[in-house]
Amino acid sequence: MSRAKASTSGTRGFIVPIGGDGKRIRSAAILRRFAQLCGGSRAHVGIISTASEIQDAVYRYERAFRDLGVDRVSVLKLETRAACESERALNVLDSADGIFLMGSDPVHLSETLGSTSVTQTIRSRNAQGMHVAGTSAGAAFLPEQMIAAGQSGTTPRADIVQLAPGLGLIGQLIIDQHFRHQDRLGRLLMALTYNPLAIGIGLDEDTAAFIGPDHTLQVVGSGGITIVDPSQLQHSAIHPDRRHAPVSVIGLHLDILVEGSLYDLTTHMASIKR
Amino acid sequence: MSRAKASTSGTRGFIVPIGGDGKRIRSAAILRRFAQLCGGSRAHVGIISTASEIQDAVYRYERAFRDLGVDRVSVLKLETRAACESERALNVLDSADGIFLMGSDPVHLSETLGSTSVTQTIRSRNAQGMHVAGTSAGAAFLPEQMIAAGQSGTTPRADIVQLAPGLGLIGQLIIDQHFRHQDRLGRLLMALTYNPLAIGIGLDEDTAAFIGPDHTLQVVGSGGITIVDPSQLQHSAIHPDRRHAPVSVIGLHLDILVEGSLYDLTTHMASIKR
Repeated sequence: MSRAKASTSGTRGFIVPIGGDGKRIRSAAILRRFAQLCGGSRAHVGIISTASEIQDAVYRYERAFRDLGVDRVSVLKLETRAACESERALNVLDSADGIFLMGSDPVHLSETLGSTSVTQTIRSRNAQGMHVAGTSAGAAFLPEQMIAAGQSGTTPRADIVQLAPGLGLIGQLIIDQHFRHQDRLGRLLMALTYNPLAIGIGLDEDTAAFIGPDHTLQVVGSGGITIVDPSQLQHSAIHPDRRHAPVSVIGLHLDILVEGSLYDLTTHMASIKR
Repeated sequence: MSRAKASTSGTRGFIVPIGGDGKRIRSAAILRRFAQLCGGSRAHVGIISTASEIQDAVYRYERAFRDLGVDRVSVLKLETRAACESERALNVLDSADGIFLMGSDPVHLSETLGSTSVTQTIRSRNAQGMHVAGTSAGAAFLPEQMIAAGQSGTTPRADIVQLAPGLGLIGQLIIDQHFRHQDRLGRLLMALTYNPLAIGIGLDEDTAAFIGPDHTLQVVGSGGITIVDPSQLQHSAIHPDRRHAPVSVIGLHLDILVEGSLYDLTTHMASIKR
């Protein structure tokens, strides 16, 4: 069958991890920016939910996009792997200008969506120009590697974090969410220390990283983004038998960015937008 | 009057900030190392307490030093500024090989001890070779600048931290304690951002920085030390009217060090002890 393709611009769409909302939807500036990116009053936005317990949040986002004047909002409840092969889901993905991926739990997302036609289609459509946002666990899930589970605390310990493959929209990036509110620096540092190829992105609530096709990240929202660059790492030592012991990590570069700041993921340089 | 001077070695004594104990005294390795430094079975250690509500903790430390074989342990209860001028206090300081400063609250310490004969004598005796340890708020109080009060959270905001003058044993260092357990990275980053002259030292509980006369710091204990070096800071912007807003801080260097690691406060270089 053939499907109508929207937003086939030839350049990759934006990837927009969002740090979550806390108890209220406060991310009006982020949603407005995402809706504009998708085409505003001409846009078709799909909302993907994998967990029935977040239906209230799904309806609040649906309402928020409608209130922002988005032409068409489609809600996809993908609570089983079978649902991720349905004709309706693939039709929505094929005509959407943007997809908004709800949270729940990163492992629930990867178990439900991983290696289905839905994730294959999201990847190929994003490469063609469809924008993809994810909030909370939906943000962590976007890159090739994700933090599947972990504990709070500032100091890295080997057993503080578990990694797993994610959606795969972008490589060499590890995203953590609810960052300030749940004290997650230690687990992000540990995730990077296992293999210092990736840049670590800690997103506060109500804060988003709009990552453009040029691999530049722009901060939108009321909180901060903590960027940890381990590419100059001089030393780390994870002891195989002492997985609960704190770990030395020497030579990290740290930036804290708020709205108006940019970060070039290729050069690892932060800057302030003039 | 003349007083017997002990440990007049000509080189400065160690300065030993300790991150606190949590609910139990677990810092046996730290106390043993401090007792050895002071001379072990020939040592005279003075314990300074400024708050009556921590008497149980004072007695536990007194017992711990006696159990480690320390020859003489003197407890100084300095709960008023008048007590900080007493002959007995100054006599103890003049003959002590080491002083152990208990916590409570940094501002209570500076209000009670600041600019008294006790603090003047601690400074001059430390310059002559007496070792000075401080735990919890007693650690924060040791340098020229201290964090007087602050809030938890990873992201720096202008109103997250208040600075005040400390005891003045060492400059260009800001110490924060109970670091991992109370999520204090944001307030330490903010303290450094106000004036990026200082190195920030975040001490986990049961973890100490033994700072020698050569300005090298050695980690002892079961936790980690978070070292933040802002000397290459490229940008920060504290908005005068938006003191609760998160702040961009670009260009920090971050090391996490555990037992066996060294940090040279002069060169800002971390290393692993062979």
